[in-house]
Amino acid sequence: QTLKIGMIPADGIGHEVLPAARAVLLALGSSIPKPEFIDLNAGFEYFTRTGTALPEETIRVLTEECNGAMFGAVSSPSRRVAGYSSPIVALRKKLDLYANIRPVASVSGTPGSDVDMVVVRENTECLYIKEETQIMTPNGKEARATRLITERASRRIGKMAFETALSRGKQNPVLTIVHKSNVLSVTDGLFRETVRGVPQLEEVQGRYDGVKIEEQLVDSMVYRMYREPATFDVAVAPNMYGDIISDAAAALVGSLGLVPSVNAGDNFVMGEPVHGSAPDIAGKGIANPIAAIRSASLLLTHLGHLEPAQKINDAVDAVLREGKVLTPDLGGRSRTQEVLDEVLKKM
Amino acid sequence: QTLKIGMIPADGIGHEVLPAARAVLLALGSSIPKPEFIDLNAGFEYFTRTGTALPEETIRVLTEECNGAMFGAVSSPSRRVAGYSSPIVALRKKLDLYANIRPVASVSGTPGSDVDMVVVRENTECLYIKEETQIMTPNGKEARATRLITERASRRIGKMAFETALSRGKQNPVLTIVHKSNVLSVTDGLFRETVRGVPQLEEVQGRYDGVKIEEQLVDSMVYRMYREPATFDVAVAPNMYGDIISDAAAALVGSLGLVPSVNAGDNFVMGEPVHGSAPDIAGKGIANPIAAIRSASLLLTHLGHLEPAQKINDAVDAVLREGKVLTPDLGGRSRTQEVLDEVLKKM
Ligand SMILES: CC(C)[C@H](C(=O)O)[C@@H](O)C(=O)O
Ligand SMILES: CC(C)[C@H](C(=O)O)[C@@H](O)C(=O)O
Repeated sequence: QTLKIGMIPADGIGHEVLPAARAVLLALGSSIPKPEFIDLNAGFEYFTRTGTALPEETIRVLTEECNGAMFGAVSSPSRRVAGYSSPIVALRKKLDLYANIRPVASVSGTPGSDVDMVVVRENTECLYIKEETQIMTPNGKEARATRLITERASRRIGKMAFETALSRGKQNPVLTIVHKSNVLSVTDGLFRETVRGVPQLEEVQGRYDGVKIEEQLVDSMVYRMYREPATFDVAVAPNMYGDIISDAAAALVGSLGLVPSVNAGDNFVMGEPVHGSAPDIAGKGIANPIAAIRSASLLLTHLGHLEPAQKINDAVDAVLREGKVLTPDLGGRSRTQEVLDEVLKKM
Repeated sequence: QTLKIGMIPADGIGHEVLPAARAVLLALGSSIPKPEFIDLNAGFEYFTRTGTALPEETIRVLTEECNGAMFGAVSSPSRRVAGYSSPIVALRKKLDLYANIRPVASVSGTPGSDVDMVVVRENTECLYIKEETQIMTPNGKEARATRLITERASRRIGKMAFETALSRGKQNPVLTIVHKSNVLSVTDGLFRETVRGVPQLEEVQGRYDGVKIEEQLVDSMVYRMYREPATFDVAVAPNMYGDIISDAAAALVGSLGLVPSVNAGDNFVMGEPVHGSAPDIAGKGIANPIAAIRSASLLLTHLGHLEPAQKINDAVDAVLREGKVLTPDLGGRSRTQEVLDEVLKKM
């Protein structure tokens, strides 16, 4: 039995951190089915060479052959480029990976705020449907984008968020719904009401009764995350707010280079570090591999391999706690390879 | 000669902080035209009593009789209320107060990060046009909101932002354009290109050549504001991003209770603390009046009374530096009135 994992480094430091994820998966030995990696194309670099950002073949292999995937990071062109559209946004939508789950937790005894939260971001709609138009008027150009919020997508992300809240084994789980319904009473109103309604659904049968529901307007959420970071448990948000608050959470733990995610659907899951392609440091061998390594761990968790996943996390935490082998984003001087070696040593 | 100022406390602590703004304006004596205050209605409390959130009479008095205005804060109902729509959003639009200018600066020698930035937020469009629809489909409800970005509004907010950058007397002014054009290539693409194009407009004649232009994606902006708060000077953003990043900036200086704003148009200006109506502390007499006091100062600046405005700011800074008379949001035990008295004493 093997674990077929599609590997899509995409752009920039994606090429430097995915090999680290691969190495830790291999180091788990027989505690997981033997991983087999399939290298797949996508990204802005690939687009500039071929005119395609996300080849059909990548989608085909992922859906037909793989048990899961790892994605690196994408570069965004600094100007609008005809025909280019973000392959990560497209991948999330095409594979219906409707939940972007982003756990952000500080390691006790390391610098940074005391945080232990999970952002559950809706991953398929909101402004990310990219329905945009532009017209010319006597007063100049006018552009419009559509923001879509559906009951169906809000309900399934709501369920995922309640499940996440239960899965953490906290005594008093709290789910914070992030929205801006004081302005967007219809769209964010629908999101809020639908998520609030999840515990009453017949099929969940009281399962979420122990989860306390709170709400925060998105502006206030960003404010509070910095003022009272330790007070949040699980937060659920429409796509764009989720994008923003997960970066806010990453700042609290000291570096985007630490924060993993999975893009999860009902049939497929793809690990992805939350950081971008970091063109400023790409190619220098100093990218922090921890976000990618933790994303591999999260991928395993979602595939049901809980113990091996924990083993990776424990090794990473030990490296961070020792604080001797750190990349520059954490104030250290070590290289990607050195951090990887240290993690492997602790495993 | 008098200065007619419309006073709209609206909801919650708005009623407690606007009197403080009034008191400092009166305390300036003959250094400004004698202020005359006209009390005006608006808000959720007013709506629950009358069915109207923003009476026509308020608009009429503001536009026909006032030289400027001060707004307190609005409460947002916790559920959608038929017929209610935020009066502050409506006021900004009806008076065409297209720029929301939010300076956030730490007082040296006080706790908090080292910040000295101004958020220039577009105030009339983006998702705030509130064009929302909802339909029923076989899969449940589907809601849509329209996000509008026009060249005209982006250009005028861009100009306001470049002017703001020049006005601060910095050696190397930097304007950071905040957007998410890697996803919203049309709407945010238009915003970015239009703001970038402002220095090339014929009418500005090289005026902005000394202002360096930078860009940040909104998620990355929130991240960097926390990681490198001191690196930002002026940031310009579409409405919703501006809402979020100004709360992020407020967190950096320790409290929303410190951050002032003006809503400025070509013909009218209205001061407004950035904080909300704070139902949790309303009526207790412990709201921080500093955001409102600083908003009064900012109002004076925009009306051309620079020295009196500075006098208010210096007094506030002195109170903060001493750190003896502070409201609970800043870790103190003083009341609204005591902080006001202390500011008046320093003037
Ligand atoms: C690259 C970009 C399209 C992406 C997003 O906005 O989703 C990124 O910021 C992320 O958070 O994964
Ligand atoms: C009350 C709300 C509508 C308002 C906004 O979103 O503009 C507030 O958050 C603000 O920042 O002034």
